[in-house]
Amino acid sequence: MTLSASPLRLATTQADFEAQFKARLHWSADTDAAIEQRVAEILADVQRRGDAAVLEYTRRFDGLDAPDLQALTLQPEELKAAFDGLPPAQREALQAAAQRVRSYHEAQKKASGESWSYRDADGTLLGQKVTPLDRVGIYVPGGKAAYPSSVLMNAIPAHVAGVGEIIMVVPTPRGEKNPLVLAAAYVAGVTRAFTVGGAQAVAALAYGTATVPAVDKITGPGNAYVAAAKRRVFGTVGIDMIAGPSEILVLADGSTPADWVAMDLFSQAEHDELAQSILLCPDAAYIDAVQEAIDRLLPTMPRSEIIAASLNGRGALIHTRDMEEACAISNRIAPEHLEVSSADPHRWEPLLKHAGAIFLGAYTSESLGDYCAGPNHVLPTSGTARFSSPLGVYDFQKRSSLIEVSAAGAQVLGPIASVLAHGEGLQAHARAAELRLKP
Amino acid sequence: MTLSASPLRLATTQADFEAQFKARLHWSADTDAAIEQRVAEILADVQRRGDAAVLEYTRRFDGLDAPDLQALTLQPEELKAAFDGLPPAQREALQAAAQRVRSYHEAQKKASGESWSYRDADGTLLGQKVTPLDRVGIYVPGGKAAYPSSVLMNAIPAHVAGVGEIIMVVPTPRGEKNPLVLAAAYVAGVTRAFTVGGAQAVAALAYGTATVPAVDKITGPGNAYVAAAKRRVFGTVGIDMIAGPSEILVLADGSTPADWVAMDLFSQAEHDELAQSILLCPDAAYIDAVQEAIDRLLPTMPRSEIIAASLNGRGALIHTRDMEEACAISNRIAPEHLEVSSADPHRWEPLLKHAGAIFLGAYTSESLGDYCAGPNHVLPTSGTARFSSPLGVYDFQKRSSLIEVSAAGAQVLGPIASVLAHGEGLQAHARAAELRLKP
Repeated sequence: MTLSASPLRLATTQADFEAQFKARLHWSADTDAAIEQRVAEILADVQRRGDAAVLEYTRRFDGLDAPDLQALTLQPEELKAAFDGLPPAQREALQAAAQRVRSYHEAQKKASGESWSYRDADGTLLGQKVTPLDRVGIYVPGGKAAYPSSVLMNAIPAHVAGVGEIIMVVPTPRGEKNPLVLAAAYVAGVTRAFTVGGAQAVAALAYGTATVPAVDKITGPGNAYVAAAKRRVFGTVGIDMIAGPSEILVLADGSTPADWVAMDLFSQAEHDELAQSILLCPDAAYIDAVQEAIDRLLPTMPRSEIIAASLNGRGALIHTRDMEEACAISNRIAPEHLEVSSADPHRWEPLLKHAGAIFLGAYTSESLGDYCAGPNHVLPTSGTARFSSPLGVYDFQKRSSLIEVSAAGAQVLGPIASVLAHGEGLQAHARAAELRLKP
Repeated sequence: MTLSASPLRLATTQADFEAQFKARLHWSADTDAAIEQRVAEILADVQRRGDAAVLEYTRRFDGLDAPDLQALTLQPEELKAAFDGLPPAQREALQAAAQRVRSYHEAQKKASGESWSYRDADGTLLGQKVTPLDRVGIYVPGGKAAYPSSVLMNAIPAHVAGVGEIIMVVPTPRGEKNPLVLAAAYVAGVTRAFTVGGAQAVAALAYGTATVPAVDKITGPGNAYVAAAKRRVFGTVGIDMIAGPSEILVLADGSTPADWVAMDLFSQAEHDELAQSILLCPDAAYIDAVQEAIDRLLPTMPRSEIIAASLNGRGALIHTRDMEEACAISNRIAPEHLEVSSADPHRWEPLLKHAGAIFLGAYTSESLGDYCAGPNHVLPTSGTARFSSPLGVYDFQKRSSLIEVSAAGAQVLGPIASVLAHGEGLQAHARAAELRLKP
């Protein structure tokens, strides 16, 4: 059987464009009640029984039998040994990627993550103190979606932020460890790792057990159980985002080789069948060329079945009236990855309001950004770029307001606070301000 | 009957300090299954029936009957009319507070909310673009906890961030509007308001109805139903934090008049019976003086019953070995409000790692910060200052990574990405990078 991939072909001028476009974009984040119930039970059990519960679930779900959680702990020397055991090309690539990711996040910290303060005319000091979290947990999926690059992308911003301890959890079904994942943990500065996963790992990090220390925040992607568990422990600890399927949107003016764009669409589609690849372009002949490249290149891809399923089920090639319309549609989608594959990307970039990451120009393939350009590859999916941001140093910092009202300032602020507090019926608030007034 | 308030008196040197301290701090954020179920039904109903469902719940829960949602809409002119109708002292106080809150948040935007980028040696551009959210919803409680100052604290950062539309919802049980709340909405730049509340208002903002526009993020405090609804719509829209009871921790060296500190403890306690006021001090005689001030001042307070209930049930006066130990205990609590009531507050501030807002020196009563010093009064509660931050301009912005890999940069990055992508079994990622390599 020959595989073929035909993303849905649409034109914004066709009468049913809106309906077809909406249907193709639709993805439901609805939660599964059975999973929710199961996860609630696991969380409660780990909270109650600690290590014993984690061991039991690890035995049951990962087929991994251990006498105690110490046996599932990886100390820094074991992470280093994994690194030392890699082929040199992988060692060098990991280190080079880590170095670039570190540099970018150091720039990010400098640009937006430093403490600041000022004094007003009355001598009152106002500001904000920025401090790192004490201890964070990083969830790393095992099995088919075990990505060492995700270890770098989660741990390095935490490390740059100055987090004291970075605890990694990674399931190792039947005890099979991924050396690249452990090596990445070493390169990224992970403090300690536990080879546990699922909701039980999230519970252990959120509540702490005799062996696993309680953390302040949990980041990193996982399956439906992990996502449900993270949502439930939110409040006890911080969490990053709840990720949906991955997406790419390519905004093309027709100047990039069609093969490059086809391969970029593939590189999203190969993640999983639910991943979404969309091309927006005002040039119909170019869209034809991309479809032709898809047909030609698909059989050469090892993951062609996943790619075909993704493109056929969720992909779209959309012919727009012009680039401006393409930008407007992109803003409606708020894609996770947005390639501006144009000879003049800076003309279009200011029109683009919502996206996790914007890749400018023909040479900026999403994959370069995924691995080593520097910016984070943990990005808001499913339209959540409307209100959320890439994982960053700021996710591993928190801010405290600083206020030092001078004696003179208290004379100015006191009467204002007093009027407003009385207006709200909070007389102790008013009196506290009034007590600071000089007679 | 004479009311009395005796916060639990503890000393860190006593044998059972740990147990007593933990018991007093304990507060459970556990959710109520009945509320969860009810909220899930309301959300689903509003998603399905829109305006009709919102009207029905408003009739049932708020005793407010309206023919359609237009009748529950407040346009800018009505907000302005409420402002114009206030006594001059309230008008001036609102404006003065708004001005200071605006200045602070403008400084915050400048310090940490601007776009940035740089080019590396290969000419590759890396950066982050910061943009405002398009449209946000602000939940404002009605009834006994209707705080106009909260309107300022939620809407002004959104306005400073550059949010296009700020939609406010505020329940008005039996149609009773709070003029100060509407006036604050006018001063803070709210675009439009709806007099609806509860889970139905959260649902309308998250999903949109014929009359209420769907927003990108919902902020603001509410009761258990509102909190449960916000938690459930998280992902469809952004939310701020889920707030617990309010808390103050006063770290005193004994140099501040005891009456001032007693009143500061009251000003937290008067919020509600679950609010928590804690004093940490190395000077036992000073703690006696504060208790004496509590006894003397309590009968003079209009909200003395709430204050007494809060202090008796959750308050604590803790005698510490020294100020260093007091700082360490404060870090364990990670309080929402932290007053450093010391003659030398800058000596202790560097030791304080976790707090929503830090109030330095005797003149900086929490109430001045609550209303008009400038920083936000929406702060992380219940120890969540370990990982979260005051509401700020950054909550109404999102970031997009910017990457423009130069042709030269692609030659350096391509081989790194290729090795790592092959290591993860993602060949399309590798090929996309390899296609950009020059022969």
